[in-house]
Amino acid sequence: MRNIKLTVEYDGTDFSGWQVQPEARTVQQTVEQSLQELLSESISLVSAARTDAGVHALGQVANFHTHSTLPPETIKVALNSLLPRDVVIRQAEEVEPEFHARFSADWKRYRYRIAKRKKAIGRHYCWYLRYELDVERMRQASSILAGTYDFTSFCSSNSETKTHICRVMECQWQEGEDIDFEIQADRFLQHMVRIIVGTMVEVGRGRLPVEEIGRILEAKDRRQAGPTAPAKGLCLVEVGY
Amino acid sequence: MRNIKLTVEYDGTDFSGWQVQPEARTVQQTVEQSLQELLSESISLVSAARTDAGVHALGQVANFHTHSTLPPETIKVALNSLLPRDVVIRQAEEVEPEFHARFSADWKRYRYRIAKRKKAIGRHYCWYLRYELDVERMRQASSILAGTYDFTSFCSSNSETKTHICRVMECQWQEGEDIDFEIQADRFLQHMVRIIVGTMVEVGRGRLPVEEIGRILEAKDRRQAGPTAPAKGLCLVEVGY
Repeated sequence: MRNIKLTVEYDGTDFSGWQVQPEARTVQQTVEQSLQELLSESISLVSAARTDAGVHALGQVANFHTHSTLPPETIKVALNSLLPRDVVIRQAEEVEPEFHARFSADWKRYRYRIAKRKKAIGRHYCWYLRYELDVERMRQASSILAGTYDFTSFCSSNSETKTHICRVMECQWQEGEDIDFEIQADRFLQHMVRIIVGTMVEVGRGRLPVEEIGRILEAKDRRQAGPTAPAKGLCLVEVGY
Repeated sequence: MRNIKLTVEYDGTDFSGWQVQPEARTVQQTVEQSLQELLSESISLVSAARTDAGVHALGQVANFHTHSTLPPETIKVALNSLLPRDVVIRQAEEVEPEFHARFSADWKRYRYRIAKRKKAIGRHYCWYLRYELDVERMRQASSILAGTYDFTSFCSSNSETKTHICRVMECQWQEGEDIDFEIQADRFLQHMVRIIVGTMVEVGRGRLPVEEIGRILEAKDRRQAGPTAPAKGLCLVEVGY
């Protein structure tokens, strides 16, 4: 059987996240259904990340095994003609049999977008905040998180993962028309980026001293961190292998 | 009575254009309804441009006369809380009684966005073209249109305007992640930007020689120009007074 790797873009607005759930429209179910229609065989997709409801992706990665002999480019073009408009296959390529979208990944990169003014155009892709934010303070706070730490404080209390240790390779804020947070790490915990952003916003609003970030990290207690920022500002940008 | 000028952003996707029509959801009707709810008086909005169904605006301008004594900033904030999420008032200001959003305008600026790849995110704001475009050829073609000319060839044949003479002050293509066309003129005819873009794309694809643009302009015949590009790529960026 061949192993095919897909790079997938989606607008998460009308999806209940990536993972298949009964009676919900999910990206995994949508892509699997189009693949089954195209290849006439049962397909099971493995993804790099299980994004939550409302979260977007420019470069989600998924793979599947197939008996089909169709060239990857043909799979891509045919899939794009079958898929609804909020999912686009950016790339399809044949990979070695051992390739696993989740376990083979070295890192993932997410972007979180904060809008400085209320928007109509592109409103589904950002979180509008009516407060003034001190981005310099947020930069200082984010620099504390770069490194290998236990991120329990920045993880949903529902998480069932054994370890909460993550290596954050890059973590920075950039201000232009919007305020963008980019974070790259070897793994991400449930709601991790959204809790980090929600906490950084408290720092940017002046409601939390910069130094508190270090204390929150050490506390290993979700209740010490700030609120979870809304899903719509988040986008899975790239997965590295 | 006071005269209030509004700068309005909207996502045209779910609107049947600006102008009130029976049994259609239009931006004018939506804003007038919220204004009437807020001010408890009958409101009639005049706009700088009557954008078509599906066309977006970052800076549409409209004005209305009112007996209200509410400060403009209060009108803006209150309106934004009443309006649906696909319309946002960016600015409200009191202007002189003679100000007329359409007749007082010196120029308007539109942007047309062509996407080079199929997109899920932001797909409502661009026209995806599967062909390779020679942007340099399109730049040469657009330079022919800068100046004061009769634009009959680039105007819907349904137009009932007396004169088709427009002064195009700026007209250029820029290539980045997308291919953007920006055009500024003292007035625009029905479908003018979309017909210009549809024709330029024929040049970019190599199906029309650059020099033909001059001949098409001189012909004053809509049938000589290319097809009308889809509405969703078009955005009214700014109106100058």
